[in-house]
Amino acid sequence: MKNKVKITSQFWSRYRNLVRTEMIPYQWAVLNDVAGIKIERERNDSSIPNEKSHAIENFKIAAGKAKGTHYGWTFQDSDVYKWLEAVAYSLREKMDPELEKKALEVIDLVAEAQEPDGYLDTFYSILGLEWRYKRLAGSHELYCMGHFIEAAVAYYEATGNEKVLTVAKKCADNIYENFGLEEGKIHGYDGHEEIEIGLLRLYHVTTNEKYLELAKFFLTERGKHPNFFKEQAAVYEGPNALNGIEDMPDTYFQNHEPVKNQTTAEGHAVRVVYMCTALADLAATTGDKELYDICKRLWENITSKRMFITGGIGSTVIGESFTLDYDLPNDTMYCETCAAIGLIFFARQMLRIKPKAEYADVMERALYNCALAGMALDGKHFFYVNPLEVNPLKSKMDPTKSHVKPVRPSWLGCACCPPNLARMVASLDDYVYTVGEDAIYVNLYVASESCFELSSGSINIEQDNEFPWDDKTKIKINNISLKNMPVGLRYPYWADGLELSINGKTQDYEIKAGYILIDVPAYTEFNLELSFDVKIRRYYANPAVSDDVGKVAVGRGPFIYCLESVDNGEMLQCIELLKDSKLEYKWNPEILNGVGIIEGNGKRINTTKDELYSVTSYSYTDTKLKFIPYYAWANRGENEMMVWVRES
Amino acid sequence: MKNKVKITSQFWSRYRNLVRTEMIPYQWAVLNDVAGIKIERERNDSSIPNEKSHAIENFKIAAGKAKGTHYGWTFQDSDVYKWLEAVAYSLREKMDPELEKKALEVIDLVAEAQEPDGYLDTFYSILGLEWRYKRLAGSHELYCMGHFIEAAVAYYEATGNEKVLTVAKKCADNIYENFGLEEGKIHGYDGHEEIEIGLLRLYHVTTNEKYLELAKFFLTERGKHPNFFKEQAAVYEGPNALNGIEDMPDTYFQNHEPVKNQTTAEGHAVRVVYMCTALADLAATTGDKELYDICKRLWENITSKRMFITGGIGSTVIGESFTLDYDLPNDTMYCETCAAIGLIFFARQMLRIKPKAEYADVMERALYNCALAGMALDGKHFFYVNPLEVNPLKSKMDPTKSHVKPVRPSWLGCACCPPNLARMVASLDDYVYTVGEDAIYVNLYVASESCFELSSGSINIEQDNEFPWDDKTKIKINNISLKNMPVGLRYPYWADGLELSINGKTQDYEIKAGYILIDVPAYTEFNLELSFDVKIRRYYANPAVSDDVGKVAVGRGPFIYCLESVDNGEMLQCIELLKDSKLEYKWNPEILNGVGIIEGNGKRINTTKDELYSVTSYSYTDTKLKFIPYYAWANRGENEMMVWVRES
Repeated sequence: MKNKVKITSQFWSRYRNLVRTEMIPYQWAVLNDVAGIKIERERNDSSIPNEKSHAIENFKIAAGKAKGTHYGWTFQDSDVYKWLEAVAYSLREKMDPELEKKALEVIDLVAEAQEPDGYLDTFYSILGLEWRYKRLAGSHELYCMGHFIEAAVAYYEATGNEKVLTVAKKCADNIYENFGLEEGKIHGYDGHEEIEIGLLRLYHVTTNEKYLELAKFFLTERGKHPNFFKEQAAVYEGPNALNGIEDMPDTYFQNHEPVKNQTTAEGHAVRVVYMCTALADLAATTGDKELYDICKRLWENITSKRMFITGGIGSTVIGESFTLDYDLPNDTMYCETCAAIGLIFFARQMLRIKPKAEYADVMERALYNCALAGMALDGKHFFYVNPLEVNPLKSKMDPTKSHVKPVRPSWLGCACCPPNLARMVASLDDYVYTVGEDAIYVNLYVASESCFELSSGSINIEQDNEFPWDDKTKIKINNISLKNMPVGLRYPYWADGLELSINGKTQDYEIKAGYILIDVPAYTEFNLELSFDVKIRRYYANPAVSDDVGKVAVGRGPFIYCLESVDNGEMLQCIELLKDSKLEYKWNPEILNGVGIIEGNGKRINTTKDELYSVTSYSYTDTKLKFIPYYAWANRGENEMMVWVRES
Repeated sequence: MKNKVKITSQFWSRYRNLVRTEMIPYQWAVLNDVAGIKIERERNDSSIPNEKSHAIENFKIAAGKAKGTHYGWTFQDSDVYKWLEAVAYSLREKMDPELEKKALEVIDLVAEAQEPDGYLDTFYSILGLEWRYKRLAGSHELYCMGHFIEAAVAYYEATGNEKVLTVAKKCADNIYENFGLEEGKIHGYDGHEEIEIGLLRLYHVTTNEKYLELAKFFLTERGKHPNFFKEQAAVYEGPNALNGIEDMPDTYFQNHEPVKNQTTAEGHAVRVVYMCTALADLAATTGDKELYDICKRLWENITSKRMFITGGIGSTVIGESFTLDYDLPNDTMYCETCAAIGLIFFARQMLRIKPKAEYADVMERALYNCALAGMALDGKHFFYVNPLEVNPLKSKMDPTKSHVKPVRPSWLGCACCPPNLARMVASLDDYVYTVGEDAIYVNLYVASESCFELSSGSINIEQDNEFPWDDKTKIKINNISLKNMPVGLRYPYWADGLELSINGKTQDYEIKAGYILIDVPAYTEFNLELSFDVKIRRYYANPAVSDDVGKVAVGRGPFIYCLESVDNGEMLQCIELLKDSKLEYKWNPEILNGVGIIEGNGKRINTTKDELYSVTSYSYTDTKLKFIPYYAWANRGENEMMVWVRES
């Protein structure tokens, strides 16, 4: 089965071109320490390495091609792998010999850095192989190899390069020899899930059962023996592999109980959604009902109790973690870009198990809001943390908020997010549809031309629209196969109605699990027109979310909107949106590469008072409010921003 | 000049008896590790010592009377000194031979632990005297000696015990020999201000100028050479004296610039107000106008931009610090009990320089709200941190709020607050009046019988009232002196009017700097009656305080009120107080040892919705609200609490 989705969407083509023409070259320069930029710490913590990336240099040293020692995090290698993965998707979309040359150099370098037995990790190759696999809480060895395997599979699938796949298999084989239930093997797992995702991808491309088995081992072993990390640490005398991280609560590592018993999302948010992605992939791959139930429980907990309206997750900087149900503070949260991306990964795998529009709804929410906000419009500045409310003075002067940056830095001490965004955007074509032999589901309304080759023949689907701004799409489905093909059209949560016509005739429809199913007969072309009722929406949070009570968030289509002080004046907390104000949507081509803005009537507390506390109530002045889509904030200099606005 | 204020107030007598009969014996048991209680860490930080107090044992070891090593913080000694100071005030109020015996034992023990040259600090006496005075950023040596000197002066003044004063003078002499501008002396100061307060008290009792000079040296040297702490740390190889604390920003130690240039309150809140207390004492003592200006600037910044409505200060747990103007978050703040107490100290010294009612207003605010909330009604449970909003689940499960405890622990790993409260309450008589040769000012309306002996004769003042609950007071002033005596009556900020009568006749009055001045002729008795218009007040914060915008705080007299879920149901965030609701005050003798409660009408968001985000706005149900005084919260089990309530 070889599928091809060519994205033609104007909105996404700009981003995908940006990845190809700006992000990938820029990130390459950073990884090689020639970008000439200042690396910022992601928060006030002097232990965060921020002198340079050194990521490529680490490989050269490990490969014996340069002198020196390792610099950076234990997971510095993964920056290179995620870059390589982004390159793979980019080449898949459009071959570029220059870029391919760089990728092949990297692959050669990785192959040279790989140990003869397949082990691959520059940190221990440089600092002492005798300590490998001995402090997994913080070493990120399997995490890095997982990212390499993902990149390798992507690169192999995009270009057919066998060498990179061979390196990946050697890598996985080394892990297989060292980890497992058998005596003599390590009954443990990495402090940061990711290898499980890599191994499953390797299984999909190789169909070698041992990779599936190994992924399953890691996922089921986790949490069975919570002292594993501490026991390793007690006898470890090797180089500092984030030593001390094993003192974090077991929940940080999702290590507090066996995964099958976990019912709430606990600990480091990225770790959780990476674990869930692998779990759901395993469930989809094996059809294991029990695994699906675990995934459903965790999905339900995250998306109905622990997710910000932007699709961001992670409520505290301490451990970059989930906290408790309905604890969603707008100005101290974490909402790491990588976590939103991980939630998109998770959603995609859930859709593979069972097509339910709610999975795609969340995917779309995280994609168009939190994830996309992770990068500036120039593709060269990145947020690690994506707040829903910012006051730049507080970010600077309140150490509690040092992680809440008001402007995207050029690069970050912990650089996980920028290359993660690159690979996400570059592989967006993989998220538009869920394709099975028995049905195809349209998850995202993204203009594109697609061809799916199934065993019965091929299906072409063409989406012609100006989403995410417009409210209608044409979808041409050409079933050139032996059998009727049901095509599911997602009824998105943000539509207040949907008119459907097929070949020019208005059509009634039923919605099942959030999808409208159209049965396209064999050897038939259907021309659909979908016209959504896209109203500006006022969203209210569950009153259990104490931080949002009395407030409203404005959205339209997949976008959540926000106020910035550049449009609305300083001290945004003084603003209230009138309950009865009409909200108007206007296309503005002049700002932020063209965005739809929303205007409404509000009032503003007068700030003439000097007293700190007084018995005089507030006085107000009428004001016009201007909202912009959240993803586009912080592109016009440093200023205040606010998603949840008081309503009166 | 020997003055005596005997407090007869029912409200305060209960607390002062509690100090004598419960707190002092209880704290004595804790300091001796025989209380049989569990010591809680004040936040999630495994480095906080919480096995035991060991404070008395440290002295025994240092004195050579027991074997073992030092346990606890570098400032563990100060717990004993603050206890001794509380005992001094308690004995001053009421002699108690049993208690005196314990105090004399402690004094003997301290004398034995003192080094022959006067140095006094069990940490270095036990762990290596060669390292003394060599890492002052975290060693707290001068801080501890400052507390001893305060205790010694208090004890000497209360009982005439010369021995304790001798130990204190030896101690101060040792410091004098080691610190100062002269060559060969250390041009430095302690990481935590306190010695300055102690030296000034020692000066007041001995009139020895060198103690004044030394206090002035410490206060003026600070911040001149911000690298002082780091330079000491670079060459230090002694025992761990909070090593690493010198990496905190210079502001943490008020070490960022010379004190005379400081215009905003920066860094650790307790340190700031202890420094200010000494500065103001020095200004009052020397009449130095420039010093007073510094004090005024810092006072102004704290009280008009950085103080919670409860009189709490310190906006973040990180460094227990001030942050920036108007940053007053209700549920993550610090508001340490000691900081509120320090603010009371500062206010008292400011009143000595110049009688302005605003100083007494703040003193009263901090006293009746934040400081008093620091202890349970039983006198045996204590808050370190005094939040204005608590959800117990968040305190437990959100690591960002691990310092925000919903119930007072029996004791704390860092036990600075409980004995500080004991000495504050036990010495409350020192805060009621400001007494000078030329005028006497009534700062607090606390029922009491007082006699002030001035050079011209004596003045007796008797306050007869049921404050803080009642709205009137009788004040009998008997001037048995050679000259007319002006007596200033504070016009409190919470009064909407005040009727005054003298000897039964209603009297017009003028207000000057917040005081009504009554000139009492020589050899005359005046019987005053003051009748305050004490309305329930709705307070609104300056709109720059983003956390309070759209909300209201309820107060009456000196008390700020709060909602608790035990009275108002869970999910307090769902509650709104109606703008037009009448608020009614009722005395309730049944709960919380008798309190005035406030009732009003509100509405409550219905919590029937399951969705995390929806387009359906909230629905409401009418509800009755019941407010209790803030100081009395968390005395009826674990529950939610909220000071700032949404108003609609």
